[in-house]
Amino acid sequence: MQFTSDNTAAVHPAVWRAMMAADAADTGYDGDALSRSLDAAFTDLFGRDCAVLWVATGTAANCLALASMVPPHGAVVCHREAHIEMDEAGAPGFFLHGAKLLLAGGESAKVTPATLAAAIDPIRDDVHQVQPHAVSITQASEYGCVYRPHEVQAIADFARARGLGLHMDGARFANAVAHLGCSPAEAAGPVDALSFGFVKNGGMGAEAIVLFDVEAATVLRYRRKRAGHLQSKGRFMAAQIVAMLEGDLWLENARSANAAAAAIGAVAAGRLLHPVEANEVFITCTPAEREALRAGGFVFYDWGPDAARLVTSWDARDEHVAALARALAGL
Amino acid sequence: MQFTSDNTAAVHPAVWRAMMAADAADTGYDGDALSRSLDAAFTDLFGRDCAVLWVATGTAANCLALASMVPPHGAVVCHREAHIEMDEAGAPGFFLHGAKLLLAGGESAKVTPATLAAAIDPIRDDVHQVQPHAVSITQASEYGCVYRPHEVQAIADFARARGLGLHMDGARFANAVAHLGCSPAEAAGPVDALSFGFVKNGGMGAEAIVLFDVEAATVLRYRRKRAGHLQSKGRFMAAQIVAMLEGDLWLENARSANAAAAAIGAVAAGRLLHPVEANEVFITCTPAEREALRAGGFVFYDWGPDAARLVTSWDARDEHVAALARALAGL
Amino acid sequence: MQFTSDNTAAVHPAVWRAMMAADAADTGYDGDALSRSLDAAFTDLFGRDCAVLWVATGTAANCLALASMVPPHGAVVCHREAHIEMDEAGAPGFFLHGAKLLLAGGESAKVTPATLAAAIDPIRDDVHQVQPHAVSITQASEYGCVYRPHEVQAIADFARARGLGLHMDGARFANAVAHLGCSPAEAAGPVDALSFGFVKNGGMGAEAIVLFDVEAATVLRYRRKRAGHLQSKGRFMAAQIVAMLEGDLWLENARSANAAAAAIGAVAAGRLLHPVEANEVFITCTPAEREALRAGGFVFYDWGPDAARLVTSWDARDEHVAALARALAGL
Amino acid sequence: MQFTSDNTAAVHPAVWRAMMAADAADTGYDGDALSRSLDAAFTDLFGRDCAVLWVATGTAANCLALASMVPPHGAVVCHREAHIEMDEAGAPGFFLHGAKLLLAGGESAKVTPATLAAAIDPIRDDVHQVQPHAVSITQASEYGCVYRPHEVQAIADFARARGLGLHMDGARFANAVAHLGCSPAEAAGPVDALSFGFVKNGGMGAEAIVLFDVEAATVLRYRRKRAGHLQSKGRFMAAQIVAMLEGDLWLENARSANAAAAAIGAVAAGRLLHPVEANEVFITCTPAEREALRAGGFVFYDWGPDAARLVTSWDARDEHVAALARALAGL
Repeated sequence: MQFTSDNTAAVHPAVWRAMMAADAADTGYDGDALSRSLDAAFTDLFGRDCAVLWVATGTAANCLALASMVPPHGAVVCHREAHIEMDEAGAPGFFLHGAKLLLAGGESAKVTPATLAAAIDPIRDDVHQVQPHAVSITQASEYGCVYRPHEVQAIADFARARGLGLHMDGARFANAVAHLGCSPAEAAGPVDALSFGFVKNGGMGAEAIVLFDVEAATVLRYRRKRAGHLQSKGRFMAAQIVAMLEGDLWLENARSANAAAAAIGAVAAGRLLHPVEANEVFITCTPAEREALRAGGFVFYDWGPDAARLVTSWDARDEHVAALARALAGL
Repeated sequence: MQFTSDNTAAVHPAVWRAMMAADAADTGYDGDALSRSLDAAFTDLFGRDCAVLWVATGTAANCLALASMVPPHGAVVCHREAHIEMDEAGAPGFFLHGAKLLLAGGESAKVTPATLAAAIDPIRDDVHQVQPHAVSITQASEYGCVYRPHEVQAIADFARARGLGLHMDGARFANAVAHLGCSPAEAAGPVDALSFGFVKNGGMGAEAIVLFDVEAATVLRYRRKRAGHLQSKGRFMAAQIVAMLEGDLWLENARSANAAAAAIGAVAAGRLLHPVEANEVFITCTPAEREALRAGGFVFYDWGPDAARLVTSWDARDEHVAALARALAGL
Repeated sequence: MQFTSDNTAAVHPAVWRAMMAADAADTGYDGDALSRSLDAAFTDLFGRDCAVLWVATGTAANCLALASMVPPHGAVVCHREAHIEMDEAGAPGFFLHGAKLLLAGGESAKVTPATLAAAIDPIRDDVHQVQPHAVSITQASEYGCVYRPHEVQAIADFARARGLGLHMDGARFANAVAHLGCSPAEAAGPVDALSFGFVKNGGMGAEAIVLFDVEAATVLRYRRKRAGHLQSKGRFMAAQIVAMLEGDLWLENARSANAAAAAIGAVAAGRLLHPVEANEVFITCTPAEREALRAGGFVFYDWGPDAARLVTSWDARDEHVAALARALAGL
Repeated sequence: MQFTSDNTAAVHPAVWRAMMAADAADTGYDGDALSRSLDAAFTDLFGRDCAVLWVATGTAANCLALASMVPPHGAVVCHREAHIEMDEAGAPGFFLHGAKLLLAGGESAKVTPATLAAAIDPIRDDVHQVQPHAVSITQASEYGCVYRPHEVQAIADFARARGLGLHMDGARFANAVAHLGCSPAEAAGPVDALSFGFVKNGGMGAEAIVLFDVEAATVLRYRRKRAGHLQSKGRFMAAQIVAMLEGDLWLENARSANAAAAAIGAVAAGRLLHPVEANEVFITCTPAEREALRAGGFVFYDWGPDAARLVTSWDARDEHVAALARALAGL
């Protein structure tokens, strides 16, 4: 019973169908009809002009998006537990040609204007210090917590006031929207670029870089190719995204995953390290307890010496979730 | 009737089946059983120890492979019409952190020890000039021509004598092997790394970096992740490659594509700009002739003012090939 | 008797005096009065607004200047024998983060609109190919030849029409101005940035990056520091440049060097590989003749198997020049 | 009365004399006799084989040295207040092609094996996280504190045990040696590379990269040129260093600067934020007190809201130091 990662989940049948339907000859790279439909589809979804590029991974999406905002001599401010800092193998340094990450604090891996200010206010405005050029936030955060629209707005106001771009790592953006019950536009707020994730949510290998600064797309198209991310059969990537948007499948899948996490969180209320708002549950859990759970057939990650991370997926089976809830209750 | 590019071809049914079979939960990234099977599969195929990493594109495969041989202050010697020079948007400069490409000549986009020597002999051995660290050759070449085993060996001898690594861009390696009728090991010769292409030959989005310098894999695994090329559902990439190897599907597909090209080349013998050895046919063709062909329903690229490029795929339909042959004969 | 390089020449006494006069405490880096005087001094000299940064080497000057025009995914077009291509150890790839050099032809290492067009016209306007963003020309050229003002203007018109920036490598700009007998503004034409060299012309270790796009200076000040080129005792660098400008010492020194070269060129007219317009003389010269010259006490570089390069400096001694002229005449 | 920075100090007369003596024609770049003498001179000084390269700045010295130890996908561990982190404008990211700095704690900007371990122990040994490849320490530290030989040894043992290179930023190495009263070899311990600073200690613009891994020099010579740091009249840089070594001028100058700092520290004992071990004094100092000092003619930097930094130089005048001591005593 898998609670390791939403990366291990299956590809949604509708995504499979769309990919197979894309198996007719069409123009290579991103010249096909499906790829060309994405700008309009996301403009509809967000009610704002945007340009959209597919890439295979969240790392590529985040780093290309940031490359449109930050010069090699600049910096990105992010949470010190942000994925771009912790789990992308230094990809920001690669894609941004040596630009720096400046680390801010904040509860549950969420920054605030105050923590951002604390990170960058000490920077002298001189050529000896690296200056920030953008803020990157993760929606939902690395601890499965969700920025409220007013929180995003406050960060955006801060960024604007400081002349910084704003990027949102939305590897689990769908889960955030599902939790908030608002529109995607409200959950994203006035960000300049959003990495809209699909792989963890029923896709196979396609994420969308949504650029609300439409002009930035021209350069990013070169940068994507230059990074080896312009797949020659791009129609299969676009097909995944189109399928996920159709009938709001992305939202439906996220709701399933969130509901499973909520069910688990409900029985583990006393153990929660963070509020359960998306599809991740972080609990205190001793080594003995973890052993007991694993003996019961549950697969998951340790989270330091006395905690565990439980991730639910769009295809979480009710009986597995119920079994885990029972097991946690019985610890 | 598509003769534009083998990128527009369909995904082979066996590849689809393998991908769907991979849709069970397994470890993320490259920890799944299929990904872990690749080293052994290619070691079998080549009869030499190797380590294998999947990536989605030929550009990523080429540039990561080269990154294992060439430091940022070094250079790669390649043909002046090599894909890495002409059609990868400067990706070598990105992945190799500013290393240079040194350009050599040669018929039909094939280098020789003599053309390589002509390119690098004038380089003074001092710190003011960029020194070569590797040679990259393309098998089959960008003009669809195939290096004979003795030619690869001669280049490898040259590289060794000069202390250079040797990389082979095998985007159409299968077509080269099919043409030569030899083993893959003979077609690759003693290269240090091979980008073994599958996308143009019935795959969807997976190429194999085959590292005969097995130690190099450790660093490349970091570099792959850092370049955003470590897909989280890597099992679907490995599945494609495993399916292509099974029963030598890669070879069968390449034979089909080569046969179609040969049929076209046979009727256009007087027009051929290069021998037809793989799945590409380059012919002289006036604008009026191209217009006539297009009016007949054939889709293909111009190749300069008075020529055309015709590419055949593994799934080329006999009636389309026959129709094109007739049309060419009738020009 | 040194004819190897103008790098071996002495530092001019006025430069020494200015450096010693700068040995009083002043603000570090480029905050001192001398450094702050440079913008105005060059604005006077060129009659155009400019911002000026000192750096220690021509390589740093060229590459920082180009970094203000060319993004990492772009290219610079230059002559195939340009210093940035041949003798800077790949520094453009380093400072420009992997951007490419596109090579053009032209007599005596001078490009023309036609040779530039020949280099870039074949580039397809798509994301697979690296697009040019700037042109770099060398005044005087690597073969000691000088662009006439109308030639610079024609190149600038070409660059403007193609949307390209224009950089001038002026390692021997002074020699070019001395030859032309025009104003520095006329010799530079409407370039966007000029690397104005002093080291080869009586300085010790200071060159000026003259940015006619004044806004570009803000970013370049960060980039200079980031490249380790912001010396903490910058006053000694500024002092050199100020001394060279005073009383047009730069022009006087260049005239001396040019005159020496002209004297040598005059006796070697039948051997000249390029017109002698600055302070370099390239002559056909057999190995036996070179041996004879060396036996006579002359030091210089071979230039391939049957030629020699003779470089004169601001401090060339008349008797050495006369001796060389005699020796050449007597060969 | 200058206490702002040792960068504002004068060039020592012996350095001037050596530079002027170097003004005879010699081979360009680092081919001159003085440059070629450096390996032997430092090998003598340290009693260990080493290869030495001059560069103009500490930033270039640090970053080139680190480039010999850390690949682009790796990291350097340093103190969170290290100069390479705080005051080099992101130069490590540039020279190391995007490699990361991992930040450790420690009193007075000195790391310990424990703080280093705390910084790197949480790093998982997988490809998603950037792995450390080197440690960099500053001797004397950014707060003017000195590592004892046994402390350096402990850090070196830690580095070796973890497979990490060890670099020492010795911008004020001379001051550290002067404080310790030991040999330079003892003060450096078994580091792999040392940036030996001269500019702050009576030089003009020359620092030495001392590579105890002699093999590393070959690559660094290319990297230095590629970074625009191979000055063509390198003899003037070598001359400075040779002069500083002669008769242990470097040590004598450092002793003077240290003595001045000690005198100031002695009267400000109750205000000291860090022990005074080199030539920097950090004291608590209210805005009103700072104003009073400045009204008395003393120039120095604020260090946050309630502190000041006072730096002494080799040429600190006794009467200035005495005056400052009196002023501090009288606050």
